[in-house]
Amino acid sequence: MDSFDLVIKGGQVATASDSYVADLGISGGRIAAIGTGLSGARSIDATGKLVLPGGVDSHTHIEQPSPPPQKNADTFASGSASAAAGGTTTVICFVGQKKGGSLAEAAADYKAKATQSRIDYSFHLIITDPTPKVLEEELPPLVAEGSRSVKIFLTYDGARLNDAEALRVLAASRKLGALVCVHAEHHELIQHLTAELVAKGLTTPKYHALAKPMVVERECTARIVALAEALDVPIQVFHVSGADSAEEIFRARARGLKVWAETCTQYLVLTADDLDRPGMEGAKYICSPALRTTADQAVLWARIKDGTIHNITSDHAPSRFAGPDGKLCAGPNPPFTKVPNGLTGLAARLPILFSEGVSKGRITVQDFVALGCTNAAKLFGMFPRKGTIAVGSDADIAIWDPARKVTITNALMHHGSDYTPFEGFEATGWPETTLSRGVVVFEDGAPTDTVGHGRFVARAPYDYIKPLGA
Amino acid sequence: MDSFDLVIKGGQVATASDSYVADLGISGGRIAAIGTGLSGARSIDATGKLVLPGGVDSHTHIEQPSPPPQKNADTFASGSASAAAGGTTTVICFVGQKKGGSLAEAAADYKAKATQSRIDYSFHLIITDPTPKVLEEELPPLVAEGSRSVKIFLTYDGARLNDAEALRVLAASRKLGALVCVHAEHHELIQHLTAELVAKGLTTPKYHALAKPMVVERECTARIVALAEALDVPIQVFHVSGADSAEEIFRARARGLKVWAETCTQYLVLTADDLDRPGMEGAKYICSPALRTTADQAVLWARIKDGTIHNITSDHAPSRFAGPDGKLCAGPNPPFTKVPNGLTGLAARLPILFSEGVSKGRITVQDFVALGCTNAAKLFGMFPRKGTIAVGSDADIAIWDPARKVTITNALMHHGSDYTPFEGFEATGWPETTLSRGVVVFEDGAPTDTVGHGRFVARAPYDYIKPLGA
Amino acid sequence: MDSFDLVIKGGQVATASDSYVADLGISGGRIAAIGTGLSGARSIDATGKLVLPGGVDSHTHIEQPSPPPQKNADTFASGSASAAAGGTTTVICFVGQKKGGSLAEAAADYKAKATQSRIDYSFHLIITDPTPKVLEEELPPLVAEGSRSVKIFLTYDGARLNDAEALRVLAASRKLGALVCVHAEHHELIQHLTAELVAKGLTTPKYHALAKPMVVERECTARIVALAEALDVPIQVFHVSGADSAEEIFRARARGLKVWAETCTQYLVLTADDLDRPGMEGAKYICSPALRTTADQAVLWARIKDGTIHNITSDHAPSRFAGPDGKLCAGPNPPFTKVPNGLTGLAARLPILFSEGVSKGRITVQDFVALGCTNAAKLFGMFPRKGTIAVGSDADIAIWDPARKVTITNALMHHGSDYTPFEGFEATGWPETTLSRGVVVFEDGAPTDTVGHGRFVARAPYDYIKPLGA
Amino acid sequence: MDSFDLVIKGGQVATASDSYVADLGISGGRIAAIGTGLSGARSIDATGKLVLPGGVDSHTHIEQPSPPPQKNADTFASGSASAAAGGTTTVICFVGQKKGGSLAEAAADYKAKATQSRIDYSFHLIITDPTPKVLEEELPPLVAEGSRSVKIFLTYDGARLNDAEALRVLAASRKLGALVCVHAEHHELIQHLTAELVAKGLTTPKYHALAKPMVVERECTARIVALAEALDVPIQVFHVSGADSAEEIFRARARGLKVWAETCTQYLVLTADDLDRPGMEGAKYICSPALRTTADQAVLWARIKDGTIHNITSDHAPSRFAGPDGKLCAGPNPPFTKVPNGLTGLAARLPILFSEGVSKGRITVQDFVALGCTNAAKLFGMFPRKGTIAVGSDADIAIWDPARKVTITNALMHHGSDYTPFEGFEATGWPETTLSRGVVVFEDGAPTDTVGHGRFVARAPYDYIKPLGA
Repeated sequence: MDSFDLVIKGGQVATASDSYVADLGISGGRIAAIGTGLSGARSIDATGKLVLPGGVDSHTHIEQPSPPPQKNADTFASGSASAAAGGTTTVICFVGQKKGGSLAEAAADYKAKATQSRIDYSFHLIITDPTPKVLEEELPPLVAEGSRSVKIFLTYDGARLNDAEALRVLAASRKLGALVCVHAEHHELIQHLTAELVAKGLTTPKYHALAKPMVVERECTARIVALAEALDVPIQVFHVSGADSAEEIFRARARGLKVWAETCTQYLVLTADDLDRPGMEGAKYICSPALRTTADQAVLWARIKDGTIHNITSDHAPSRFAGPDGKLCAGPNPPFTKVPNGLTGLAARLPILFSEGVSKGRITVQDFVALGCTNAAKLFGMFPRKGTIAVGSDADIAIWDPARKVTITNALMHHGSDYTPFEGFEATGWPETTLSRGVVVFEDGAPTDTVGHGRFVARAPYDYIKPLGA
Repeated sequence: MDSFDLVIKGGQVATASDSYVADLGISGGRIAAIGTGLSGARSIDATGKLVLPGGVDSHTHIEQPSPPPQKNADTFASGSASAAAGGTTTVICFVGQKKGGSLAEAAADYKAKATQSRIDYSFHLIITDPTPKVLEEELPPLVAEGSRSVKIFLTYDGARLNDAEALRVLAASRKLGALVCVHAEHHELIQHLTAELVAKGLTTPKYHALAKPMVVERECTARIVALAEALDVPIQVFHVSGADSAEEIFRARARGLKVWAETCTQYLVLTADDLDRPGMEGAKYICSPALRTTADQAVLWARIKDGTIHNITSDHAPSRFAGPDGKLCAGPNPPFTKVPNGLTGLAARLPILFSEGVSKGRITVQDFVALGCTNAAKLFGMFPRKGTIAVGSDADIAIWDPARKVTITNALMHHGSDYTPFEGFEATGWPETTLSRGVVVFEDGAPTDTVGHGRFVARAPYDYIKPLGA
Repeated sequence: MDSFDLVIKGGQVATASDSYVADLGISGGRIAAIGTGLSGARSIDATGKLVLPGGVDSHTHIEQPSPPPQKNADTFASGSASAAAGGTTTVICFVGQKKGGSLAEAAADYKAKATQSRIDYSFHLIITDPTPKVLEEELPPLVAEGSRSVKIFLTYDGARLNDAEALRVLAASRKLGALVCVHAEHHELIQHLTAELVAKGLTTPKYHALAKPMVVERECTARIVALAEALDVPIQVFHVSGADSAEEIFRARARGLKVWAETCTQYLVLTADDLDRPGMEGAKYICSPALRTTADQAVLWARIKDGTIHNITSDHAPSRFAGPDGKLCAGPNPPFTKVPNGLTGLAARLPILFSEGVSKGRITVQDFVALGCTNAAKLFGMFPRKGTIAVGSDADIAIWDPARKVTITNALMHHGSDYTPFEGFEATGWPETTLSRGVVVFEDGAPTDTVGHGRFVARAPYDYIKPLGA
Repeated sequence: MDSFDLVIKGGQVATASDSYVADLGISGGRIAAIGTGLSGARSIDATGKLVLPGGVDSHTHIEQPSPPPQKNADTFASGSASAAAGGTTTVICFVGQKKGGSLAEAAADYKAKATQSRIDYSFHLIITDPTPKVLEEELPPLVAEGSRSVKIFLTYDGARLNDAEALRVLAASRKLGALVCVHAEHHELIQHLTAELVAKGLTTPKYHALAKPMVVERECTARIVALAEALDVPIQVFHVSGADSAEEIFRARARGLKVWAETCTQYLVLTADDLDRPGMEGAKYICSPALRTTADQAVLWARIKDGTIHNITSDHAPSRFAGPDGKLCAGPNPPFTKVPNGLTGLAARLPILFSEGVSKGRITVQDFVALGCTNAAKLFGMFPRKGTIAVGSDADIAIWDPARKVTITNALMHHGSDYTPFEGFEATGWPETTLSRGVVVFEDGAPTDTVGHGRFVARAPYDYIKPLGA
């Protein structure tokens, strides 16, 4: 056995199933061997550390165009630095069709931006205008080249599809073999409740949660499940935020449907109370679905454990707080209706999951790997290239110190925003060194000089419809 | 990297999470390296084959004393040959206290027999008489030396505990940190229904299923779950045979209890109709719990997929059909009450699970490994030494041909019985070569000369009470 | 105690709770006394008969304008004759706003027609165009004068509301204290599935059931429940046709919501197989929701027994089969999309419920009274004037022969259509004499000369929001 | 219509279904007429009052022999006075076989005592020793003469049956057509938990609830349901005390089983916290099953509303607090294991149900009648003679002032005990006058001179196995 390009020595290697001490031999950007006594041109000592697959975050908005004056706070350079800082080595981000615009052009523009990424990436295709041209001419080649998933919104003016349009996208996706990801909230009910609140002058950030209560998500989850069931289309419901929508997912899966769900970091550690922080601080926590309660958090953990929730993402959607394009772009005291939605979370995702999950004894390290890395790679057709440590897999690795205590600050996040909603979170367990295809992209508390190292991950047709293995 | 004792080359290695092509390097009976281009003193070409962890069958009765004239049809030599023939490399079998007898003496006797095993083994401790002496003097050293699980029967004269006794065993096991495994059927209801059938002269084999209907198992499952819950003791319910008892397990787990369940091969492919085969053929299918329906089989698969059922065992309990100590030991046409219970199944377990599961598309190869190998090893404290392929793990390996079609015959089972209840089963996928700690124990359709190769697996205290990781 | 106008002597009187032999004394159109040995100006001997409250059918389309060339086959004279023939003495029928039209004018027109009724009646108000004028100017006085319920459609072109409109109606109804009744099927999914079927040339009547499968009803039931829950509005879901939508109602009620449900006669005795009768016979069975399966029928009975389904109606919506305005108005072999929806059922409702329920031992006579008479009267604010036999209640009475066997024919229905979908149904139990406010409206197999006897039942505000009493 | 013996004039008459103003004419101890303007030899003005059926309390221990030194605090004279004080006019009490004794003799003794009752009564037959003689010789004539129900205990030394014995009683009852009532708690688990508490010196009254936690009741409820299901025997589970056992009843009924349940007054208004009152006050609240939590109370109300719980009883089991035969019979500070179980509650039952139910808006007056009177009469075969107001029914009537506010004191209870556990309860709604078969047994705050007025209610075979009508 020859010398390797790089050896990671003596760490506790963990996959979604296993955990054992071994050296990893890396050559040509891939894992070439797992053993002991391996030697190579370079080596990293991982003794006493966890050697985990790099994270796969299948729900991230990076450098995605926003309606002015809002602006996504990250470039691919900063967003991928933030990912790497948090132990994540693969992101799926979004090609977004504009209403009336071309999906193909949006894809071309976005691909050009993505070349700056430090880590590997793939795309979900947001369809906002499912014209025959889009569905029959523009979508097929994009899916064929590896963007094998579609995203639809059932709320948000400018993005939402009505049910007739949603059905057209579902039917087209089924034909092409693309997984449909869904933002599920009942649009008109949100509008109705919002109008009532606005009419009463109730517009501070805390009312955001009352304008989008759990029932809007529960209803819409049940609805999209029904439409997908009727047309036999596999879907993933994005950002399941609490008990009621998780129950709908549970019921769908109990019927044997090809329905998967994610939840996001913020729904596990933040609540609607954060929207009621003094002054406009609450605006920092405006995202959709809205934050829920601690009781919902407990249910989410139970649903994570029983497999109802398949993976954990960040729904990274960064705005700055200050400045003309940030959370307060509409003025110093905007109504909640004028505050851009979304939280930054790429770097915080895995440390918070590790800390709340593994360090607090809710899940094992293997479960952590499954929820943060493996399951998303499997669901979106990137496995075993991504999401695990196995011979032949990409050498996407995060070396973790499971005992390290870190208090989260914005500086540690390495993203483009001026704040993090997780400021002050006390983490136990932290990624120290991150490698993408064998190249160190983050170490010693800073990203390395790797802008542009990332590559597009083309996803071939895969067996995501198998009932258990996903 | 030095040369290995043995290299298994070019197979499709699979674990409970992964699947990839690699060589395995084996030295000192353990997996030393996973890579490509490995070389060693010997090698096995596994190109085009699956290289899987050897099976772990946590429920086997081998050479266990039976009440005369019945006799267990296997010795450790034959039982372990049968295991190896079916790709299984670790069994847990039973030290059985006799009513009024000593547990310690039973253990000493049984250990002496087990030294003849070709593969590794561990023991569950059957307690039939929980006297203070047994619980306080005999049990603790046995648990301490590594038999870290207790088995109780809630039915069967001569073996059953009443609820007061069961509570004493549960309490003692909790104190010692031993998992309690349970045969759960309502004894008095079985007696009542049996007496009614006998009084009506309804005693052919098919009435066995009516004497032990699902309700006796459902009730008793709910009962032992309640007792375990009240005393906070982790348990595994053995041989869940159908929908109703599986539902009780589901409910227990939804309450967050430390309750696990197994089902057995026979409940997935045989039904109560087999008890109604012509003549006394039905006697070949008498086991407890009784065989159920195809509807139950469908529910069992659903419960396997959702994690309610944790692993699949054989409940290997071999009787010969013919002869003075077999199924017909009480005469040529015995009433079902006089037929020894139990089916042979060690060799058939994994081929049937593979065939019905993987080949028919119900589960992935990774799921197969989890259900047949990894989960039992985890639940019973033998992981990662057993149940997976990882650096440092015992080199217990089964090399499978996933495409091979085999019709099961008794000769292929290599056990001591004169029949198999799975005769004629058409399998797709078959284990070809089986290794125990790097030594080939079965190849070319026959066991190798390895009687006595097996070693006792001592199980140290482990984290089986963690809610998700098991 | 003075002499009564009329005495019904010696019958078995039954209410939703009781059953006993007594005379009823009737004066001034009301029940004046219950006792024995009563005497009056006239008397009816009911010895050996059941004396039950007249039926309350809260879902009937009578002489309601249809889009040409279709035509409702009943006038109030014929429709109320049919009701009386089946033992029903109160109907709620529909004032229907035309898209863009005036609700007030529709009400005025319809009231004029209703004066011809032989039995008492009240109105649901169909809103198809919830403009501010309709909701704020036209609706309030109609509710105030006693039409204290609103009907909305979520499917059917020309009638359906989108969700934003539905929310406006719910909000207005809540303010006014009107119960909202809902036809719940997912419009766009029906359109999508219909278009697929039409594109494939699959347009015979049996495809009607495939264009409107259970999932369209289940989804829409969950949706309207969610909207009503969000705005805290009591609703009744109309014509629950099978297991899945009934489950949604069950879940809503388990959450403590003010949600009630009805099912209709046809869903208890007809199935989708009737749509596949030879030639165009299947067109006789086209109604929405579509007919389901026998398994659904079994679930409906279970849900009737556990209170999930509150009352049984006819959804009487009569078309002739032959003729230019009937089921075949679009030609001799129309696609299912061109066949008018709806079945005739006023006269058949109670006999079928009695026969399938009481005579077959599924329910008691008291349950029959509750399901056919009392519960609807309570839910819609007509109790105790209607729906029971109590001192002071209107003397609306049906005298039943519980043992009489009758084969249903169209002639026995006394309606305006040329067919009944229940032709050939073998009933056990039949209403013989029907009285409205003490006046015999049907006897000896024929309606009496009572056109115009009926009066509008104004419904005052009532306690329909109490969780149990309804 | 002739003059009546007695007329109750102008009250608001209510049944389980209806509510209306009318006069009741009573002759020969029965309700002869319901009307207006009735006249009679005597009359009671009930204007502004509710005129309700007298209560039926199907679970009362009156003058029942207890193991010395304990003594039942009531005679039939005092117990029936207490019943009448609370508006109850029929009780079912218990003939109790002593272990090893004769059931027939126990019945003869008890019948002699019961002749002193002021109100009508019937018997459940407690079997503690199901010998062939008891089941085959003694039981049949007692059932035949009208004691058509059997009671079994699955806990309590001296009373409990093991499962084999329970099966024999179930089988015998099925043959005879007797309903089996069950005290369901897991005996050995109680013993195990009690021994643990005693060993730790934890014996004050509050530990009673920890020795008998909900799991002992949940388990045993599931068990007796299973046994009854296996043998197809209708049962009522007595004193369902909280959420978990109610859920088992719900599941049983959802499977269509003939399983009914009661709860008792104390489980609706008292909790385990009452066991922790200062000093030995807690001993006043020792009963089995033990009192639960306010959360359980909320679930019980939900289960009352959905029909899972069929009727409300008192489980009247009176001990004095002071004195040598009362709660402290074993000394001034007895361990909870030495405190007689049981609470007094006959008089408090209906006032508390009315107050918590009707006055607080949880249920309607009709529901109150159903839960307190009608349903028990139906379930135990006394309907329509008892439990309703209908022509021909016994004139058992309670005249209630729905607005009267009363603070419960022991003096108001008119029983033989020196305390009531409901002392200080603020009731709204109170029974003022109680009649048994037309005779006033309680008025103006005191029982009338009617000792011995009561008669045995023989119960003929009845249709209690119908799934809905009960």
